[in-house]
Formats: sequence, C-alpha cells, structure tokens
Amino acid sequence: MMFDAQTYIERRKRLKEKVGSGSILLLGNEESSVNFKDNWYHYRQDSSFLYYFGITLPGLVGVLNCDTNEEIIFGDELTIDQIIWTGPQPTIAQLANKCGVDTTLPTTKITNFLQGLVHYLPPYRTENQLKISEWLGAPMNFIHKGASVDLIKAIIAMRSYKTAAELIEIEKAVDITADMHLNAMRYAKAGMLEAEVVGKLHQIATSGGGNLSFPVILSKDGQILHNHYHGNVLNEGDMVLCDAGAETSMGYAGDMTRTFPVGEKFTAQQKELYQIVLNAHESAITALKPGIKYRDVHLLASKTLVEGLIAVGLMKGSAEEAVNAGAHTLFFQCGLGHMMGLDVHDMEDLGEQYVGYTDTFTKSTDFGLKSLRLGKAVEKDFVLTVEPGIYVIPELIDMWKAEKKHHTFVNYDVLETYRNFGGIRIEEDFVITASGSRLLGKPVPKTIEEIEQVRAESLAAGNG
Amino acid sequence: MMFDAQTYIERRKRLKEKVGSGSILLLGNEESSVNFKDNWYHYRQDSSFLYYFGITLPGLVGVLNCDTNEEIIFGDELTIDQIIWTGPQPTIAQLANKCGVDTTLPTTKITNFLQGLVHYLPPYRTENQLKISEWLGAPMNFIHKGASVDLIKAIIAMRSYKTAAELIEIEKAVDITADMHLNAMRYAKAGMLEAEVVGKLHQIATSGGGNLSFPVILSKDGQILHNHYHGNVLNEGDMVLCDAGAETSMGYAGDMTRTFPVGEKFTAQQKELYQIVLNAHESAITALKPGIKYRDVHLLASKTLVEGLIAVGLMKGSAEEAVNAGAHTLFFQCGLGHMMGLDVHDMEDLGEQYVGYTDTFTKSTDFGLKSLRLGKAVEKDFVLTVEPGIYVIPELIDMWKAEKKHHTFVNYDVLETYRNFGGIRIEEDFVITASGSRLLGKPVPKTIEEIEQVRAESLAAGNG
Repeated sequence: MMFDAQTYIERRKRLKEKVGSGSILLLGNEESSVNFKDNWYHYRQDSSFLYYFGITLPGLVGVLNCDTNEEIIFGDELTIDQIIWTGPQPTIAQLANKCGVDTTLPTTKITNFLQGLVHYLPPYRTENQLKISEWLGAPMNFIHKGASVDLIKAIIAMRSYKTAAELIEIEKAVDITADMHLNAMRYAKAGMLEAEVVGKLHQIATSGGGNLSFPVILSKDGQILHNHYHGNVLNEGDMVLCDAGAETSMGYAGDMTRTFPVGEKFTAQQKELYQIVLNAHESAITALKPGIKYRDVHLLASKTLVEGLIAVGLMKGSAEEAVNAGAHTLFFQCGLGHMMGLDVHDMEDLGEQYVGYTDTFTKSTDFGLKSLRLGKAVEKDFVLTVEPGIYVIPELIDMWKAEKKHHTFVNYDVLETYRNFGGIRIEEDFVITASGSRLLGKPVPKTIEEIEQVRAESLAAGNG
Repeated sequence: MMFDAQTYIERRKRLKEKVGSGSILLLGNEESSVNFKDNWYHYRQDSSFLYYFGITLPGLVGVLNCDTNEEIIFGDELTIDQIIWTGPQPTIAQLANKCGVDTTLPTTKITNFLQGLVHYLPPYRTENQLKISEWLGAPMNFIHKGASVDLIKAIIAMRSYKTAAELIEIEKAVDITADMHLNAMRYAKAGMLEAEVVGKLHQIATSGGGNLSFPVILSKDGQILHNHYHGNVLNEGDMVLCDAGAETSMGYAGDMTRTFPVGEKFTAQQKELYQIVLNAHESAITALKPGIKYRDVHLLASKTLVEGLIAVGLMKGSAEEAVNAGAHTLFFQCGLGHMMGLDVHDMEDLGEQYVGYTDTFTKSTDFGLKSLRLGKAVEKDFVLTVEPGIYVIPELIDMWKAEKKHHTFVNYDVLETYRNFGGIRIEEDFVITASGSRLLGKPVPKTIEEIEQVRAESLAAGNG
C-alpha cells in the first residue's frame, strides 16, 4: 500500500528545495541473507526511501537532481525465469508511476547521474555502503564521514512532523501493538516458556499483515533492558516485562511495554514499585506539550521515580538533588523515550544528535542522559514514546556499592532485599497536539487493578 | 545449547587433516540491521561456524592452523555498559571452553595469524566479505574467486553425513514443523487473510524456542513457487499451499509442504491433480536408497507426474519420452528436493555444484534440471527433502503455447480449463538408511481422505 502519487511528488519537491543544489541519492534496501545468499530475512525497505517513493521492492535507488529537477528510479526488471519463482509483478516503471516518477533506468546507468555534488545518507547496511563507495569512487571507510548533513537535516525537518495520513497508519500499528500486549497478558501462565508468549506476539503482529517493528523483549528478567533470550520458564511470583510492537505493511511502527504478574496478582513489593513507575509515567504525560524540552520531561519523570523510591526506603535525601546528581540512574539507566514513525526509533540511522538534539543543545555524555535519544523541545505532530522504568541490575549495584557511589542518596542495605526484583517498564505512544498530547491507539490495561483483573479473568477462563 | 566439547574437537581435528596445510578461517556472523544499525533481525550464526564451534554469539571468528594445530577464537568481550543492556553473559573464553578451544584473542590480533596460505569459505554476507578483504588485503571483487575449494570440499564431506545426535536435533525441528502444518491445516478458514495463517505458523515456530528455518511460503496462489505475499483472502474453493519449517535453537532445520482445501473438501479437479502429486511423492520415496542418483529419483517422480497428467488429459504420448524431452517442466519447473541440516538448503552457501553434484557429474543447464539442487548418488545418513509438485503458471503456458513448445506432449486446449488452478506441492524430510530411507518427524495428514477429515473436524469444532 502507498499514499497517493501527489504525496510523494510534494515530499520530493520540498526535499529538493531544502537541499538546494546537487544530486540527492536515496538507496533502497536489498534483500538480507540469513545463512545462505537466497535465504532471506523478511524484506524491509529503507524508511527514507519509503517516505519519498513508497515502493517496497528490493534493489531500487532513487536520484533527485536539485538543479535540473530530474527524478529517476534505478532498478532491474524481473526476467521470465524470476517470474516463475515470484509470480507476475508490476514493473519498476509501473511502481514508479504510482509515486509520480516518470523515469526508470537499469542500475548500471546510475553513475552517469552522479556527477558533481552528491548528497547521501549514512548507510546502516554494508551492501549500501559498498554501492556508494563504488559509485562515488570513495574508500569504504570514508563513506560515513562523507554523508550529507544538509540532506540529513532536510529529511529530519520533514519526517519529524507526522501528517494526518501518517498518524492514521501509526495508529493502525499501535492498535495491532495493543492487541499483541492484551493477548500476551491473557495468554501467559505459570509453567510456560517465555518463548511461548513471544510466539503469541509474533502471531498477532504477522496476522496484522505487517511484521514486528523490533525484536521482542519479553522476560521475567525485566532488568535486562534489551533481553532477547526467551528460554526461561515463567513461575508464580515472577513478573513478565513485555516490550514489543508491530509495524504495518507500509512500515509505520508501534512500540509498547507492559509489565504484569505471572500469577493473578502482583506481590506487595512488586505493587509498590509498579505504582512508582506508573506515577512517573503519568507525570511525564501530564507535562507533554509543544515547547517543553523532552530532557526536562525525562528529568521530571526521574524525580517522580526518586520520590517514590524515597517513600519506600530505597533512596533518601532530596529527590531533586538526587536527580541533579544522577543517583536515579542506578534504577533508571536509560532514556524516557524516543521519536517513532517509519522506524521504531524514528530516523535513528540519520544520527541521534540530529533527530533528538540541536546544533546548540547536544546530547550529554553522562551515564543515563547519554541514553536519552530525544532531548530537544517537542513540537506539534511529533510522535514519541514515554517509557519510564525501574531496573534492579545486580552487576551495577555491586559496582556502585563498592565505590560508595551516591551513598548519600541510595540505601544500599535496603536495596539488598530487592536484589532479584527484576524490572518494570510502562510504555505508550503519543502525538504532540497544539495544547498537549494524545495517546495513540486503543488503551491497554495499565493500572494495578486493571492488570490484575485481566489476569484473574484469563486464568479463570483457562485462556493461558 | 551445544553438543559436548569432544564433538567439536573431533570435527576440527578431522577438518584440519582433510585440508592438510595452511590456516582455516571460519567467520561467524554479525548482527544484521533492519532499518537502522541497532534494530536487528533475529540473530543467526553461520552454519559452518556452528558445526565446528557451536557458539551462537555475534562477531566471532575461528582460525585453525593445520600446520601447528593451533586453534583460536577471536572476539571482543562485553563492557559493563553493554552488560546493562544485555544482562550478564558468559565470556568468550568460557564459551570457547565449551567447544574445547583454549585460546581466545581480541579481533584486532587476527591478522598476525593469517600469514601464508589461508583457506576461507565464499561469504554470503557483505560484512564478512569486507572483513576477509581487509584481513587478506585482497580487493572485494576477488574474495569469492579466492574461496578455498579444498575447504569447501572438506566441509561438505563432513556435514553431508548426519550423526545420530544431529538426527535427533533435525527430528526435533521436523516435529515442530509438523505441528506448524497441523495447526495451519486446522486454523485456516474461508474469509481469513493468508497472513493470519502465517501468524499461526510464526507462533508455533517461535514457541518451539527457535525460529522459522526460511520465510513462510503460504498462498492460495500455490503456483508461485516462492510466494511471500500474504495479503489474499482465503475463499471456499481455494487451496492453500503451505511450505514452512522451523529451526531449533541449535540451528537444525525442518522443511515441509502441505496443500489443503479452504473448505471441507477438495474439488474434483483438485483431487485429481493432488492424487497425481501424491503418487509422484510416493514413487520417489519408494526409490530412495543408498547409491541411487537423486536426479534419477527426480526423473522417476517426473514420469509418475506425467503418467497422471496423461490420464487426466493434460498431457499425451509416452510419459518417458515426454520426460526425456523436458515437457513435464511446464508443470514441474523446479527440483524434487535438496539436502537439509544446519541449513534448510544444506550448505547452499558452499556452492550447489559441490553439495549436490561431483567433479564428473555437473548440474544441467536445462530448464527444470537447472533448479535441481541435488543430483548425485545419495548415501547413508544424508538428510533430504522430497517435494514434487504441479504448478499451473499462466505466464509460462502462454509463452510455451505461442512457441508451440512440446505441443506433441501438452494438450494446451485442455490446459486452458485449468488456467487458474494454482499449485500443489507435498514435501517431507527423509534420512537415507542402510537399505532405504526413513521419514523424519511425526507424520502429518497427507492423503486426500486424511486431509479432508482434519478439515471437516476443525471446521465442525469452529477451530478456524
């Protein structure tokens, strides 16, 4: 599925105007081999290529000439031998027509159109790095350095603001994502392998006609931020941290996290910390509006976390001072959220500094803040995630405790009784509106009461 | 999971003996990026690396010196910053120990150990091609030509013969694969999107603790041999061709195909052609034994197909002459099967000529036979698929009909009434035994009666 041709024509026109001169080289993705050349991962087109051309076909390259206004898609048509394996397919010329490009040429012709100033994006796949190197006659290790900051900034200035049509697609993705989470919450039960719940998530994402937007993070070890091991058995008393999302067939992403008990109810300790994370989540949402720096929202949520941690005796002193000192990063080591759109971390390939910060406001190198992907002031039509968490990481505690790090803010003795606690994250997706923000997609149970009710109903019905 | 250290020690010892002199360079795979660097596809280790080292971790390289017997695994240990995201992981030295390798070194040291004759395999991922190019100081476009035929042949001479322990793993994969097919056969119903059935397959494969062994081919357009489009609605009267398989967490693959009606029963036309494919399938299985050329099994199955097609009036003349002339390839354009093991097309990255043929028996370039991946005599402990089919491809019919190609064997007029028939494939996995072959994994309904019974029961139970 694509938007109408006019959408892509206008996007390319604006891009050429913003970049101003020279040629813009936009590389689509190739197929990606798993364990031999022709065994492929699920095909994923490059997101900027999708944004300007909308075509989901491997091996295409777009060239836009800012000086002559010429627009060409390069690619090679299928042979009859290939059609036997793939079935009849629209020609590249037919696909180009759907996005308003009149000229298509075989890839071998491309170097004729790459004379003079060529703007290209930093490649994240080696095949594309190699192509750029060959076409521009530049050494492989120069290619990243040679990427065009003008082009990067022009694309970010467009893709950051989601149109109404894009918001509809994103909301489709978030709705499938919501179904994934509701199904997982209903399906899990004691004695199951984590992988079985992951299977359920795959089913819903794939059935939605698209795919996962990123590898599923699902674990009883929720403190492991990016945990792709799913070999544990779920036991009564464990919590499941499930961070997963779908992307639609057009490539738009959803991204949510829920944390729920394997049994019917959270334990008293789990409830306490869950409510703290939920409070932090709500404090962030309340603060969201055009003009507020997302770093300030991150720090506000961090302060709410610390206030809760002080109340339960895990931290001490002034919450504000603790956050200023960075003591909260023992529990919340990462960032509050990121932009979302055609990528789950939107435009991350273009560089976090450009997407999430500005020329005068650069990303901190401090532990914690260095993992905050979005720091700058948010604007109307930005789409972003809000995902605070508490993660009890034994290796980090041991390291800090040995150094007596932030011992004026952390009650290390009390923390010992939480050593195997795990982790909690709550994540939802929002669009910034004129006056605040709007939750994307249908709501999924989030409070302790709502979650325990789903668990009780599912276990009673034997749905697990 | 891994086999015991002794297994890998012995494999490497035999490999070094077979290769004889110089260094053997075995590259593990890196993570593979989807739409930005850190958004990864499901990690898949290289199969030869798995065979000789058993370690499923990105970024490792093994070097075996045939002259000094030295064995080294190169790789870089995680930093504390990475452990926060990944959780505590065994060190590379600990993993190396599990496969009996005593020496591990950082990757930067590798070039010191690549002096003199270096044997390497043809890389199928650009990252590994680039590494070889850098380490050996050879241009990128030379790397494939420079791959070691001695190493390729030595590895094929080992990996082709499956051990008892490997057969257990393969059978696990085939059992999960059987569950996928039984579930799909029970789940599908009229009105569903193909993608919903694909979702069910993903669920079972993922729940098994591993993954898919290749992208699902599931379509009402079964004539499209490698169809990865799943956007059609299933209707009463359609058949679903489902070609899918699981791989275990150790990387061993299963690969099966079933074709079943969306309704309760096949139509009369579908039944007729289904029985022909089933007869071809059975004739191939009956012929399987050590010493028989798989190309002869392919041609025997093709002859059975033609006999059936003559009986229903789609072909005419002598079945044997038709097969000799290649007329059957209008209906059966591909090969009867392939080797299977750590890859679904086992060792395809090493070159089909070496895996499926011999120095004196090379692959045909004729339409049909050129797609037969395995032609040579099969031997005890080979694992392979048997997958005959009938595919009615309108584009191919139109081309042949216009050329009057094989018009003495093909009844083009009758064929017009089958124009939108689609395709049928039946596929199972076998190990060659001392006297014949043995079906791997639990049986899945295969006859018309068995399949119609599953469909009737499932639809009656409302399982769809």
